[in-house]
Amino acid sequence: MAELAGRPGTWGGLSLRSCQFAFAAACICVMSSAPGFANYTAFCYLIASMGLQALWSLGLACFDCYALILRKDLQQAFLLSLFVVGDWVTAVLSFAAACSAGGVVVLFERDVHFCSRDPQLPCGRFEVATALAFLSCAFCATSAIVMFCLLASL
Amino acid sequence: MAELAGRPGTWGGLSLRSCQFAFAAACICVMSSAPGFANYTAFCYLIASMGLQALWSLGLACFDCYALILRKDLQQAFLLSLFVVGDWVTAVLSFAAACSAGGVVVLFERDVHFCSRDPQLPCGRFEVATALAFLSCAFCATSAIVMFCLLASL
Repeated sequence: MAELAGRPGTWGGLSLRSCQFAFAAACICVMSSAPGFANYTAFCYLIASMGLQALWSLGLACFDCYALILRKDLQQAFLLSLFVVGDWVTAVLSFAAACSAGGVVVLFERDVHFCSRDPQLPCGRFEVATALAFLSCAFCATSAIVMFCLLASL
Repeated sequence: MAELAGRPGTWGGLSLRSCQFAFAAACICVMSSAPGFANYTAFCYLIASMGLQALWSLGLACFDCYALILRKDLQQAFLLSLFVVGDWVTAVLSFAAACSAGGVVVLFERDVHFCSRDPQLPCGRFEVATALAFLSCAFCATSAIVMFCLLASL
């Protein structure tokens, strides 16, 4: 279990955090470049939760770099408990935000046909941002499961 | 860990499953009594995932009753693995459905003001059904965590 890919303080862990950060940051950029997104609560919540996810994963990526450069071991019970709680909280919050944004995008596209009625509405960007949020969630869920397994094996 | 409240084959487990089933069934009843719900994909998906949740929790409640009456022990690795996978799948699906319905309800209520513009739209029922779905999810997440801890402690 101690050799699990993606554990903190390794190149696997660093690449997992970097992907999480990259997708969360891309989601924020795409959504904030869509005019009028601030009129919809679900999209504002998506930006807020992706902001939290980006900050958390950037912090942990820096921590991984520090551990890699100074060859420190991050697999201590206290640190792993902190990572597990943080990862699960950000994973649940960002999954909720991605699902609620997904619900609104499907409503716009298929149910009330806002996208075909109003060509000014940047539906394409809303869709891309939601897809990026789901990708970021998937990486966050992977690291949350890795952390939980590592903590359980201590 | 073997004395964890809510483990399968006990009165705690049975009451957890009964609450899950009751809230999922109540959600389906409230949502299907709301005229026009079928025009919205998020609400149809909520009904489908709550149907799955109700079936799964009813099945496990029957299994708990059987174990209580015949005094069987359900804490075997194979059964617990099955419960863990089923619980996590239903929990994630129903949380996604509840969040997407929540996103649409907030949009109707606060962003596009459909509820105040169209008094025919049963927004109150949509809200109650979404709240019931979140309650059902909370019970499902509780049993998923209990199952996972039991499996990890075997």
